[in-house]
Amino acid sequence: MSKQVGIIMGSKSDLPIMSEAAKALEELGVNYELTIVSAHRTPRRMIDYAESARQRGIKVIIAGAGGAAHLPGMVASLTSLPVIGVPIKSSNSIDGWDSILSILQMPAGIPVATVALNGAKNAGILAASMVGAYDAKVAENMDNFKKELREKVEENARDVELKGWRDTLDD
Amino acid sequence: MSKQVGIIMGSKSDLPIMSEAAKALEELGVNYELTIVSAHRTPRRMIDYAESARQRGIKVIIAGAGGAAHLPGMVASLTSLPVIGVPIKSSNSIDGWDSILSILQMPAGIPVATVALNGAKNAGILAASMVGAYDAKVAENMDNFKKELREKVEENARDVELKGWRDTLDD
Amino acid sequence: MSKQVGIIMGSKSDLPIMSEAAKALEELGVNYELTIVSAHRTPRRMIDYAESARQRGIKVIIAGAGGAAHLPGMVASLTSLPVIGVPIKSSNSIDGWDSILSILQMPAGIPVATVALNGAKNAGILAASMVGAYDAKVAENMDNFKKELREKVEENARDVELKGWRDTLDD
Amino acid sequence: MSKQVGIIMGSKSDLPIMSEAAKALEELGVNYELTIVSAHRTPRRMIDYAESARQRGIKVIIAGAGGAAHLPGMVASLTSLPVIGVPIKSSNSIDGWDSILSILQMPAGIPVATVALNGAKNAGILAASMVGAYDAKVAENMDNFKKELREKVEENARDVELKGWRDTLDD
Amino acid sequence: MSKQVGIIMGSKSDLPIMSEAAKALEELGVNYELTIVSAHRTPRRMIDYAESARQRGIKVIIAGAGGAAHLPGMVASLTSLPVIGVPIKSSNSIDGWDSILSILQMPAGIPVATVALNGAKNAGILAASMVGAYDAKVAENMDNFKKELREKVEENARDVELKGWRDTLDD
Amino acid sequence: MSKQVGIIMGSKSDLPIMSEAAKALEELGVNYELTIVSAHRTPRRMIDYAESARQRGIKVIIAGAGGAAHLPGMVASLTSLPVIGVPIKSSNSIDGWDSILSILQMPAGIPVATVALNGAKNAGILAASMVGAYDAKVAENMDNFKKELREKVEENARDVELKGWRDTLDD
Amino acid sequence: MSKQVGIIMGSKSDLPIMSEAAKALEELGVNYELTIVSAHRTPRRMIDYAESARQRGIKVIIAGAGGAAHLPGMVASLTSLPVIGVPIKSSNSIDGWDSILSILQMPAGIPVATVALNGAKNAGILAASMVGAYDAKVAENMDNFKKELREKVEENARDVELKGWRDTLDD
Amino acid sequence: MSKQVGIIMGSKSDLPIMSEAAKALEELGVNYELTIVSAHRTPRRMIDYAESARQRGIKVIIAGAGGAAHLPGMVASLTSLPVIGVPIKSSNSIDGWDSILSILQMPAGIPVATVALNGAKNAGILAASMVGAYDAKVAENMDNFKKELREKVEENARDVELKGWRDTLDD
Repeated sequence: MSKQVGIIMGSKSDLPIMSEAAKALEELGVNYELTIVSAHRTPRRMIDYAESARQRGIKVIIAGAGGAAHLPGMVASLTSLPVIGVPIKSSNSIDGWDSILSILQMPAGIPVATVALNGAKNAGILAASMVGAYDAKVAENMDNFKKELREKVEENARDVELKGWRDTLDD
Repeated sequence: MSKQVGIIMGSKSDLPIMSEAAKALEELGVNYELTIVSAHRTPRRMIDYAESARQRGIKVIIAGAGGAAHLPGMVASLTSLPVIGVPIKSSNSIDGWDSILSILQMPAGIPVATVALNGAKNAGILAASMVGAYDAKVAENMDNFKKELREKVEENARDVELKGWRDTLDD
Repeated sequence: MSKQVGIIMGSKSDLPIMSEAAKALEELGVNYELTIVSAHRTPRRMIDYAESARQRGIKVIIAGAGGAAHLPGMVASLTSLPVIGVPIKSSNSIDGWDSILSILQMPAGIPVATVALNGAKNAGILAASMVGAYDAKVAENMDNFKKELREKVEENARDVELKGWRDTLDD
Repeated sequence: MSKQVGIIMGSKSDLPIMSEAAKALEELGVNYELTIVSAHRTPRRMIDYAESARQRGIKVIIAGAGGAAHLPGMVASLTSLPVIGVPIKSSNSIDGWDSILSILQMPAGIPVATVALNGAKNAGILAASMVGAYDAKVAENMDNFKKELREKVEENARDVELKGWRDTLDD
Repeated sequence: MSKQVGIIMGSKSDLPIMSEAAKALEELGVNYELTIVSAHRTPRRMIDYAESARQRGIKVIIAGAGGAAHLPGMVASLTSLPVIGVPIKSSNSIDGWDSILSILQMPAGIPVATVALNGAKNAGILAASMVGAYDAKVAENMDNFKKELREKVEENARDVELKGWRDTLDD
Repeated sequence: MSKQVGIIMGSKSDLPIMSEAAKALEELGVNYELTIVSAHRTPRRMIDYAESARQRGIKVIIAGAGGAAHLPGMVASLTSLPVIGVPIKSSNSIDGWDSILSILQMPAGIPVATVALNGAKNAGILAASMVGAYDAKVAENMDNFKKELREKVEENARDVELKGWRDTLDD
Repeated sequence: MSKQVGIIMGSKSDLPIMSEAAKALEELGVNYELTIVSAHRTPRRMIDYAESARQRGIKVIIAGAGGAAHLPGMVASLTSLPVIGVPIKSSNSIDGWDSILSILQMPAGIPVATVALNGAKNAGILAASMVGAYDAKVAENMDNFKKELREKVEENARDVELKGWRDTLDD
Repeated sequence: MSKQVGIIMGSKSDLPIMSEAAKALEELGVNYELTIVSAHRTPRRMIDYAESARQRGIKVIIAGAGGAAHLPGMVASLTSLPVIGVPIKSSNSIDGWDSILSILQMPAGIPVATVALNGAKNAGILAASMVGAYDAKVAENMDNFKKELREKVEENARDVELKGWRDTLDD
């Protein structure tokens, strides 16, 4: 069965952040592929990747990059699939502002679905929600995931109400 | 036939910007509904809208808001559908920074697919690309749209090369 | 006797910051309740909390959150009580700017009384000043608190004047 | 009957913005006084104003200023009443950032309840909510005010749903 | 004789700014070509342009773009010629910050020589200085240009000293 | 009698702003000279000006510039007199941030006394206060100037208290 | 003999930064006094300090503070002496931006001579330059200080030229 | 044989960053000289360096500085050679913003080719590309360097595809 989501990143050093997208997709029952593609160092590889994604069965591409981050936008220019951009606060980034602005502020015609700085986990969840809009099983997984988020907060709330904040802090 | 995309905005004053999303969807052959829902002034209406969207057949929600823009994120917390957020540079916004950050920087678990400031047209195109990942006709429309973008640039390039920049500026 | 101030926060991880509000209220003789309520993960719990606060006798709500921080503003939309917002520099925040702007820049009609980044102590003092405007005992506590602040500075000033800055630095 | 809210501003040129606070208080049935007090040009007048406010029956002070805006914080240092600060985007301000930061970022011990840039209307509403926490009539006015906000959005929503966005834009 | 400098821009709407580069090159006696190339709408045209530039005799490429401005960096990734980037404050840009950061903050290995916001004139002068490092005639033109800048300031200084600032302002 | 203050600016276009410094000095009874000196276009003129200032009897230099504003800092490096820098929001400046930071953030050893953006009037007053620290007549003028500032506020305050804010706004 | 410079700071925790001003004044042969004065916690002490400074013989006041830093501007409003403001990157400051803007952006009429973030050493040198404008001995010390700065750079330059950068880095 | 590139920096403490430019030039076969020149502490040395560079055979100057960074722009004002500016995030810099803006935002007439924050390696590569535009051997080195960048990414991509991201992270 073909992969539904393609995860790419500009550099191997982005892997600790970007692997959170892969983990989220696994949790939500969406299969994916993951590799490294650099807009600036492997421009032809980027073109091949982006132009072949749809015919390989990919439904969404997640692209992460930092600094002057051109990968998500360039991939978006080369495919009609939705592209999710993850701005990465890489070592050469100015507190993440460059990563965010160079992914978010795409010109009219070529959107990138941008998530929070270092928000690779959210990129995975967002990709799953796109798949889930057409796939009942994934939608159910999404609902369960949201339920777990809610229950975790409720449990923490009960804890702090019962034990008081001083004891909770001491834990 | 049910609507595929729901477009909402926090205030009637957002309509001049947000109508660009509607226009883009029309161009790309995706049907939609459009209304006004305020997170802060009609919180219950927002909940009803978000919780009923999936069962009404909606596949993607586009939500626009400005300033401390809570609508996209709150809607995302209330549905498992993908939510596209449009930061609006409203009259009370500080150059758009508040709109962008309060939509983009969602916590882990609740993503919003953020587009550029005032990028409602791109929100429409992005929603179409999500639909197009599963709908061959919309995908074809996307490809044609990209072709037109390309041809327009090529035409402008020919013009400036033939006429020179001085004559092009004088047009 | 019912609680006068309600302290809520979006996540258990906000407790080390938000407990400063509780401590300040204790010092100033104002009773309070404290729990966890997430706008994005427990939206219905948030609504119940906000809508029942007044009838439970609460006079002020203090709400802390970080990143795209929607809790204070959403609570303010659901109650006519004053709401104090504490922008938290959480791990996912961009130096606190997102937290500040998404709490401060509320649209006309729905104010949030915003304090400094991580300023939970000041949130507690501000809540006490609101209570103290109508409660002579709390007002007296406020006056004593200010007197202590003043005396501490005067003591430090005497120290550095007597010992000189070199010896003060060596302490 | 004594005034419940004191509105002050650093300069006569702030009046077009700050008068919105007065209007909001009138709408919500809260009486007030309004005058001009400059931290930098009339420091002694500022001290007299702040130190006498409580004994004159004032419950909340609203102070607006722009640029290096010291008035709200200095007044807060001189009274135990709650002080609401309105950052004004005055002609000498850098897009409002100086006004916001010099009001919001008060040190521990001396809070200012900061509202949005130019948010004088919200300052008035916030002051009313503080009074309303102890005054049933004002609380009722607050509830009615919120209801009107809600009904206005619902009316606009009906309009755009019935007429469509094109006709609404043409109005 | 082949062109020494290639000027490209992402959109015809950039021409009013980018034509300043052409004018500067004309003044300094450096020949050039000028056309429109969009990274996002004509990616293949961009590749062809960048990869063929050196063999066509081009010595420097000047590329201007606004918003999430990927053209200068992508061209730099596709050629070993020096690339000068002009951040343009286009209508979709956030005060130019996105344009600057997405051009300036290139990763190690792929530099772009960035000039000031809307600094197309300086881009032309910088390109001329690169040519002038190897071409005595252009270097002489550069020296004369600097002399004229100096003489203009000296003339203005004499004027204001003789006439006084009041009369100079009245001119 | 020699001039006490030297006012310089990088360009004739800075004169509308910088003439406010001259006016303030005239009001405060301090004599001055005013001319144009560009760090980047007339570096040798700048050196001559800065190095000769003290022996010509100048006590303070006021230097205004915009964008990458090097004039105040370079002059400070060439004289032991105090240098006041006026960041100018010139047409090429990014909202004044470049002007401010390139004047304010001088390295240890070479200070520039920076005033507010476009704050040439304050530069004149600051220069007068430096002269006034050693000149009783100028000090007296300073005191009178402060008194006038105070009286103007008090007059405005009386007006708005007597007439009410509505009538004051209508004036 | 009376003190020429008064150094004050808002909190004892500012002493490690502010003592650099004292050291610089000692090096340059200018006598000074140093104490703690808080605008927000000891407003009356601040007034007494500022209003008595001139008659005690003080020629310049150096005031350091962080966050919403009101001390320098408030002192400037209370004296006709020149006031140098040192923005401190205190623990509650947002990367120093609040400290800078609330000191720098003073309204017309009340200037503060602002130095770089944490630039207390430069504040001391600037104060000495103001004294040195009227005191030949201090001026001579300033010249010697500048000469030492220059010789230190020249020595480092010779080192790196002789040893090469690799060996210099290894030192 | 004369040096082709001159590398200068404002302080010995910039050497760890700026030596990356030297390393890049060595790798690309371009000879260079390196020394320390401070705009503020050795202004005459700066003038001598800049004015003599061309006649000594230098083709490009690389200048690095931090904070209010005037060295690159002042050198550019004193030579007709291209000047590459490296904004350094020095200890006194505000997250690098001051360094960037005071180098990038040069006025019309005096460009500086600015690279990324701390981007000294890119400055070296950019200088080599300027030389390589006229020197076939250096151009060949540039091409090989780009090939190595590409091959490294391809190798990392193969690795992560073969081993999977979990094992790659564990390495």
